[in-house]
Amino acid sequence: MKTIINALNKAFESRVRLGIMSALIVNDTLDFNNLKEYLEVTDGNLASHLKALEKEEYVAVKKSFIGRKPNTQYVITQQGKQAFEEHISALEDLIRSQR
Amino acid sequence: MKTIINALNKAFESRVRLGIMSALIVNDTLDFNNLKEYLEVTDGNLASHLKALEKEEYVAVKKSFIGRKPNTQYVITQQGKQAFEEHISALEDLIRSQR
Repeated sequence: MKTIINALNKAFESRVRLGIMSALIVNDTLDFNNLKEYLEVTDGNLASHLKALEKEEYVAVKKSFIGRKPNTQYVITQQGKQAFEEHISALEDLIRSQR
Repeated sequence: MKTIINALNKAFESRVRLGIMSALIVNDTLDFNNLKEYLEVTDGNLASHLKALEKEEYVAVKKSFIGRKPNTQYVITQQGKQAFEEHISALEDLIRSQR
């Protein structure tokens, strides 16, 4: 059991972070509003979880302009993709131990 | 995605709580030290997560004596079992959405 729970990544404990990572694995890039609508969370909640994932270098920010409007896109990093895959595998192990 | 993450139970976000619930589904009862060894966590950490799960009525405490020594056993409640099953199903949905 210890080995299984240690293989779970603390950075992905929150369900909002699980949702962000899932969304960014499926979609190449998403902007803040896409993510907000996708996950139905508040601005503050989403921003704080995105910041935490950026700090871990699991998510990266791409800033650009659409016309004259600044646009911020979020992408998953290679590191983030690998860490999330490992987390999903650990969840699968946990589920298998219950079935 | 929103539906999947909303089906995840906030009470089980922490990996220590996932570990406690998994341990108590597999074993009928466990005492504090069993759980501590099983999960390799500190007393304070384990106590605070157990208290949170008790508050949700997912885990119940059975106090007794072994000889003259007090003994505290933890068991999963019917409610806890059902909530954890639902959480595991939601995790399965999340994993399926990634594969």
